[in-house]
Order: sequence, then structure tokens, then C-alpha cells
Amino acid sequence: MAAQSESSSSQSSTNRHAGHATQRIAQWGAAATWRDVPAAVRHEAKRALVNYMAVALAGCTDPTLDKAVRVYQRFGADRSAGMIGRCERFDMLNAAALNAMSANVFDFDDTHIPTIIHPSAPVAAALLALAQTRPMTGEALLLAFVLGVEVECRIGNAVSPEHYQRGWHITSTCGVFGAAAAVAKVLGLNARQIAWALGNASAQAGGLVETLGTMSKSISVGNAARNGLLSALLAADDFSGPDAPLEGTRGFLRVTAAQPKIEALTDGLGLEWSLLSNTYKPYPCGVVLNPVIDACLDLRRDAHWSLDDVERVELTGHPLLRERTDRPAVRSGRESQVSAQHAVAVALATGKAGLAQFSDSAVGDPSLRAFGARLRFIDDPSWPVESAQVAVVLRSGDTISRRIQAARGSLAAPLADVELAAKLHELAAYGGSGVAPQPLIDTLWRFDGEADAAVLMKLACAN
Amino acid sequence: MAAQSESSSSQSSTNRHAGHATQRIAQWGAAATWRDVPAAVRHEAKRALVNYMAVALAGCTDPTLDKAVRVYQRFGADRSAGMIGRCERFDMLNAAALNAMSANVFDFDDTHIPTIIHPSAPVAAALLALAQTRPMTGEALLLAFVLGVEVECRIGNAVSPEHYQRGWHITSTCGVFGAAAAVAKVLGLNARQIAWALGNASAQAGGLVETLGTMSKSISVGNAARNGLLSALLAADDFSGPDAPLEGTRGFLRVTAAQPKIEALTDGLGLEWSLLSNTYKPYPCGVVLNPVIDACLDLRRDAHWSLDDVERVELTGHPLLRERTDRPAVRSGRESQVSAQHAVAVALATGKAGLAQFSDSAVGDPSLRAFGARLRFIDDPSWPVESAQVAVVLRSGDTISRRIQAARGSLAAPLADVELAAKLHELAAYGGSGVAPQPLIDTLWRFDGEADAAVLMKLACAN
Repeated sequence: MAAQSESSSSQSSTNRHAGHATQRIAQWGAAATWRDVPAAVRHEAKRALVNYMAVALAGCTDPTLDKAVRVYQRFGADRSAGMIGRCERFDMLNAAALNAMSANVFDFDDTHIPTIIHPSAPVAAALLALAQTRPMTGEALLLAFVLGVEVECRIGNAVSPEHYQRGWHITSTCGVFGAAAAVAKVLGLNARQIAWALGNASAQAGGLVETLGTMSKSISVGNAARNGLLSALLAADDFSGPDAPLEGTRGFLRVTAAQPKIEALTDGLGLEWSLLSNTYKPYPCGVVLNPVIDACLDLRRDAHWSLDDVERVELTGHPLLRERTDRPAVRSGRESQVSAQHAVAVALATGKAGLAQFSDSAVGDPSLRAFGARLRFIDDPSWPVESAQVAVVLRSGDTISRRIQAARGSLAAPLADVELAAKLHELAAYGGSGVAPQPLIDTLWRFDGEADAAVLMKLACAN
Repeated sequence: MAAQSESSSSQSSTNRHAGHATQRIAQWGAAATWRDVPAAVRHEAKRALVNYMAVALAGCTDPTLDKAVRVYQRFGADRSAGMIGRCERFDMLNAAALNAMSANVFDFDDTHIPTIIHPSAPVAAALLALAQTRPMTGEALLLAFVLGVEVECRIGNAVSPEHYQRGWHITSTCGVFGAAAAVAKVLGLNARQIAWALGNASAQAGGLVETLGTMSKSISVGNAARNGLLSALLAADDFSGPDAPLEGTRGFLRVTAAQPKIEALTDGLGLEWSLLSNTYKPYPCGVVLNPVIDACLDLRRDAHWSLDDVERVELTGHPLLRERTDRPAVRSGRESQVSAQHAVAVALATGKAGLAQFSDSAVGDPSLRAFGARLRFIDDPSWPVESAQVAVVLRSGDTISRRIQAARGSLAAPLADVELAAKLHELAAYGGSGVAPQPLIDTLWRFDGEADAAVLMKLACAN
């Protein structure tokens, strides 16, 4: 019974200072047009989708996806939606789930810096699934994508940093709202229905940090896309939700963070854009390793010495770097993605730092393990986390060092458009789907002029 | 990147005092047999299923279900599974979701007293969906049901009371684990796979109290059944999860409760049974109203007075009764379920307290509202919540009162088997599906001898 009596009280006790945040977001979403989106944000949306396609084309053949495809395929109503880089067909809910899972399975997808949300996977996957069953323009899809990312990142801002620290996998928990908002927009729902879509999403927000590093993680990321899409489809049929699913007394924010910043939901809405805080990884590693790998690739490029000449490697950076990446004895590719010893060894040895260098087979090379043992950490709390210095101390006594102030891929040194395109080329080859990268890239850069958004998935599916 | 570095640390930092609770539950589940289940627990499982069928037959035609059926039906791979009280067919995931939603839509389903979980809906719905696609005996289904309820209620015990108070809809958040465990058992998974099923479920646990009273609530209850079933199907294909999804540092317990009682997961496992703390509501109301309604029906039965003779009604009970049910101006059937004013008025006026008496149309009767205004609460903290006294003060000066020590349906005064059967008859008629109740009841009382568990759903579906 408590259930019932709680319900009425919690619904009427929305914090007045919150200013009805859910309703304001819904009204903003319903009214927003492509003209309201600044040029820089429009372009960032395309960049995010290029990166999304790249990581999805890499992840689509991972064993996690093979298993998920096998099970999810048993539950598809029709074959109306495809999967990036694969030939199987699904209904749109399952396609949304799988295309979010594949983009995130290596954690190589984009990162919204204030929240560490990987924003694109849930939102893009939901929209691309719907676009295969319902006519929409590229512009409409891009607008919905921008709005979806905005909603999920603002919710993330409101619960950060406590939410993730406590153990919520923020990409999944906030992603479902982003997917719901994006689909609600592209379906043309009114403000009341958009709020219901967010309410329906609130009933489905989940995902735990404890599952990271296991296949289970992918379920929650897939669910964020699938259930966000479902939330909006239900809202379109007037399946109604609470008035304040976000800011209410027992709404998402207060339940998953003791001190939510409710104003973060709406402050500067329509003026400040979360996509402008979005970044793309150059390497499939924890971001604190980015400057380390930058330095190692740089050192290797100019090297007049061989690994055998090296006495030790000194790595200077913020203590967080050591705390998160001091892992000398890695046993799996996944673990190597957060090992400074492995990253330094493989980057100096091969001059590369792609998925192949952080795979199970790369980890199996004993010479890399041996070289990694020569790494020494030097903590310096005065260094920003996006910086690091690598010093190679040779047996001859000489030391060659590189200091990176702002790693490639950070907000201060973002990947250029051509680098994102190159990432898509490289990851498409890695995934081995046979999908041609260039037509995808060309289509995305001019996607706002595309009359039929479905063309993107036609290019992205293998056959 | 934080995501990745967190992952390894969290997985290795399971609390040692927790004694690997997930693994111990999984081992117990894998080994348990029907012979291990005491006779009283076996019988309680059947009683829970009778009650489950009753509430599902009532809820199946609610507008919430009509809408959900319309949307979910678009996403069904096949028509292998039916819905209780309806003729549409679905794949088993969607059938599981819908059969959990319908059983819970009125909050008239069973209540596990220590946690206020409605335990049967997610677990039974998942099992009955699977039973339509895979041969199993009634005994196998009942054993899996007992284990599933045990797992979900133990998880609920470990996070109560904080979890629900904070705003987690505990039926949904814990139900997904129960459904996963139950299906894992009936699929014959080994202990390792059962633990994975729980890990896959941990990635999908969600549901907020803020959604109660709206349609959104039903999504999370449906998801508990659907996603629990999916978790076990994935685990059967070796889709792997974390080692300690429950007790881990960033596992379900610690993330959703600051002070979880981890020992509650395993203390007395196999010796103490949660089903013995399960109760069934005689009235579709908040449980604190049960003694009030008992008293009113009693008073009405012997009444030598009419409502017009009544000066006022004095209601004595624990202050919680007033806090949760002082609602003089109800506007909907749903709200009337937690209104003492409406409950007293309708029970004294009609001598009944079924779903029809707590419907939108019952609330529309102005004479009930007027009579409800004559109610006075008298708080007495010394009264247990399962007790209450109703005193009818007549204009003549006479007072007639009834004191109820333990309400019908409480653990101290459980509904008898015949009362549960009568509830099924009454609710089947209310739902109007045309499903014949008696064959269902007869089948359930002897379900452990049933060679083909699928027979139950053949009897329960309309056609």
C-alpha cells in the first residue's frame, strides 16, 4: 500500500525552485527548430555521428555482439531495421539496442567531458532505427540528435559527479532519456507527450558500474537506446507518465544523487550546447592515457634507439594517472586499455595505438610485458590530467623526453574532421564488415541536406 | 575512461564479509530441488499463483494494458505466448512484460510484508511465458517460482527500508532478479550461469516511485519480467556478467542503499522462506485500510441504522493510517484506493469493497463524498498498523463500534484458500475476459502433479 499512498504525495511535492524542469525541457524540445541550432553545434553533431559510425563498425563483430544478435534475433517482429556493419535484420527496438551496444562495446565512443557520458550511442542508435521505418530528412534526424544529446547531458550534469561515483553507469542511466527525447522530437510529439516520454524513460533508467568490463554492461547501453525509443513510441500513444520524472521528490535526480543540481537541467537551455563539450578518443584507452600515448608515438617517430637500449621509462603526470593505470600484469585486451605499462610498451614498440594494439592477442606478447616492467611513475599533482611527460632513459645515460600539454582528442586539442574520417576508415577495416567508409563519411558531412535519412543505414549495413 | 579504470577495481573489491553472496545464491539455486521445499512453502507458491491469476484477469483489460498491447504487439517475433485474459499472441518477452503489468496495474497483487515487494508478478509472468515455448512440468515451474521469489525478496530485505523510501519502486528493481533467477533455474543453468543471469539483471534494474499512479509504473513492472527472462536467456548463451553484481562495491545493493544488509542475501538460505511472509489483499486498497474496511463491512452487515442517521464516524488507529489515507476529495478510482474517507463511505454504503467500489465511476458519486466528510481520525501510536477501530456515532447519540485486531489478509489473519479462489472468481468476472475461473483454480491446487505446465496458460488465455 505504501506504494499507492507515496505516489500521490510524491507527485504533488515537486520542488518549486526546480521550476518544473521536466515541463520546461519538454516545451523547449517541442518548439526547437534546426534554425535554433548554431552552426558549430550542427557541425559537432555530424562529427559525433562520424565517430559513432566508426566505433559501431569496429564493435559490430565483437563476441559480445555475436551473442546478443543470436538472442535478440529470436525476438524481432519484422526485419525493418538493420545493424551497422552486419547483414542481419531486426525490428527497430532490437536494432536500436544492438547499434548502441556495438558503438560502446570498446568504450571507444565519444565522451562528454563534464559527465563522462558516452552520449551518441543511445541517441543515434534509436534515431537510426526509427529512420528505417519512418520517412524523415537528415535535418530532422540531426535536430533530434542534438536535442537528445542535450537532454541526456543536462541530466548527467544535474547528477554529476556523485551519480557515477556511487556506481551508476551514467551512459546508460542518462542515455535512455536522451534517446526518448530525440525520438519524441522526430515523431513530432507535443510538449505534454515529450514529458511523458521522459517519464516513461524514468521508469527504465538503469545500469551499474559493477558490470563494466563484462558483457552485462552492453545490455544496459543497448537498453538505453531501445527503451528510450519505446518510451517515445508509448508516449505517442498517450501512455502517460508523472509530471516531474526528473526533479520530483522521488524522481530520477533525487533518487540517484543526494545533492542534484536541478538548475543544471534548464540553465542556459537553448543557449549553451552540450555537444560543444563532446570529445572523440584517438586511442581505445582510458582518456588519462591519451597524453602518454601521444608522447610515446612522438618519441618513436623520431627514435634513433631501439627498445633494447632502454634502461627505464619515466612517466610524469597527475597522481590520477598512476592510480588509474598502474597495471603491470594485464591479462586481457580490455584490461590493457587502462594499463600504462602496456600502452607505453606497445606504442614505443609498434608506433601504433589502435584496437589491434589493445587486443587479447597484443597482450599475449611477453616482450611487451617485460618492457612494461621498466616503467616508473612520477606523481606531480600540479599537472593537469590532460598532460603528461614520457622520458626514455637509455642505457647510454641519455634521456629523450616528450611533454604533452593537451592530449589529442581533448577539448583543447580536438581531433580534426579528417582525423575523425581516418578513424572511421581504420575502424571499418578493423571490424571487417566490408562496409565502404567513404560514402558514409561523405553522406554525414552533408547530412542536413539529405532528403531521406534512411540512406545512412543503407550505406552502413553489410550485405 | 573512468569507466574502464573503475571496472577492474570494482570487480576485485568485493566485500569479503559478504561471503561472495551472489555466488552462494547461484550455487544454492543450481542445486535446489522440489524435495528441498517444505510443504507449507509449496502450498504458499500455489496460493500466490491463484492470487496472481486473479489480479491478472482483473487488470488485463485496463486502459494501461490496452495501450501497452497496441505498442508491444508491433514488436513480437512470433505468436508463441499468450496474455492472461486476452486473445492476442506475443513472443515470450512481450508476453512476460504484459502479464506482469496486468497483474500489478491495480496494486491488488501480493505483498511480501518485510519489503512491500509485490513478488509474484515479475516471476510468474516470466515463467509462464517461457512455459509456453519450452516443455516443463508444473513441479519444475513451481520450484523455479519459489526460488525466484526467494531471490527477489532476499535482495529486497538487503536494501530495505532505505531503498523504497529513497524512491526505488522495489517490485521492479528487485523483480528483475527474481525473474532472472527463476528462469535460469527452469532452464537448468549451472551456478556460473545463474550468477551471470543475476549480473545481466543487475544491468537492467530500474523503476521509480515517482511513476506510481501513472501508466509509466507499469513499464518498469513489465520490464522486470521481460528483462529477467532476457537476462537468463543471455546467460544460457554464456553472455557473462560481473562476479558480484549484488554485493560488489558498485553492485546493486550498495548503489541503491547506503547501508545494505548484505548478510540478508544468504542468512538462512534454504531454511527460511520468503513466501511464508507473503500476503494477499482482500481489498484493492492500501494495506493500512484493510482493518478499516473489515470493520465497516462488519458494521454494515449488522446495521439497524441508515447512513442518514450517522452524525460522524470516528476512526482510531496508528498515526500512519491518517498520514497515508486522509484524502477527503478524491478525483480518481486510483486515488480512492488510498482514501479512508472513500473507503469508509463506500463500504458502509454498499457493503462491498471490490475494484468496482474503487473505480472512477464509484468516485463520481457525490453522496459518498458528502458522507466521507463526516470522518474523524483519532491517532493512537500504540495501535499496530494492522489494527483499527471504526465507531459510527448516530444522531440519536448511540455509538456502534468495531475493533479489528488483525485485518483480513494480514500475516496474522491470512486469506483462506477458499477466499483466494473466490477472489479469482470475482476478479475474472470484473475483467470480463470470459476465462473460466474454476479450471484454473483446480489446475493450480494440483499443479505440482501437472506433466505439462503450459496447460495453465491455455486455460488462462481468452479466445
